[in-house]
Amino acid sequence: MSSDEVSTPDFAVDRLVHEPARLGILSVLEGQKEADFQFLQTVLGLTKGNLSSHLSKLEAAGLIRVTKVFQGKLPRTMQEITPAGRAALERHWEQMDAIRNLGR
Amino acid sequence: MSSDEVSTPDFAVDRLVHEPARLGILSVLEGQKEADFQFLQTVLGLTKGNLSSHLSKLEAAGLIRVTKVFQGKLPRTMQEITPAGRAALERHWEQMDAIRNLGR
Repeated sequence: MSSDEVSTPDFAVDRLVHEPARLGILSVLEGQKEADFQFLQTVLGLTKGNLSSHLSKLEAAGLIRVTKVFQGKLPRTMQEITPAGRAALERHWEQMDAIRNLGR
Repeated sequence: MSSDEVSTPDFAVDRLVHEPARLGILSVLEGQKEADFQFLQTVLGLTKGNLSSHLSKLEAAGLIRVTKVFQGKLPRTMQEITPAGRAALERHWEQMDAIRNLGR
């Protein structure tokens, strides 16, 4: 690759998304219609506190939606990715792919 | 994906490598035998100070080697990725792929 061939990569990633655990949450939710807290905690192997904190940040940014439902008398918290969340995740992987291909 | 099917992902990325600009430096160097400072600055679109700071951190961690050579009377700083750098970059992309595939 010569230096005049290539457009410079975009390193300005969304730091909210770039955090690995939050990338994991968004990736899991991208493949599901919705997922409850328990499922996310098991699949991601995160502590309750850690997962709650990441979910709050993603919700505050509008990248996920969190709804509380009752199953019989039991409360369940359901999470789903929003269109903005999907777009942010897709853009992030595009940025990572562009960086990854710099060496090719 | 059911929660008992999957091993939990490894979110403990190497923060030194995870920084997008340093990912870019390692990726460029992975595809070259070596590269001089000017080339890296052009291809990555980084400022002189920014690139110098990232290169120092990568060199201190043993992920790149920096050598000063003279071309005629002109000094040139050559950078190359070390075996440890290649291993760290490969491991990082493996972690990112594992996270990316959580939704599949």
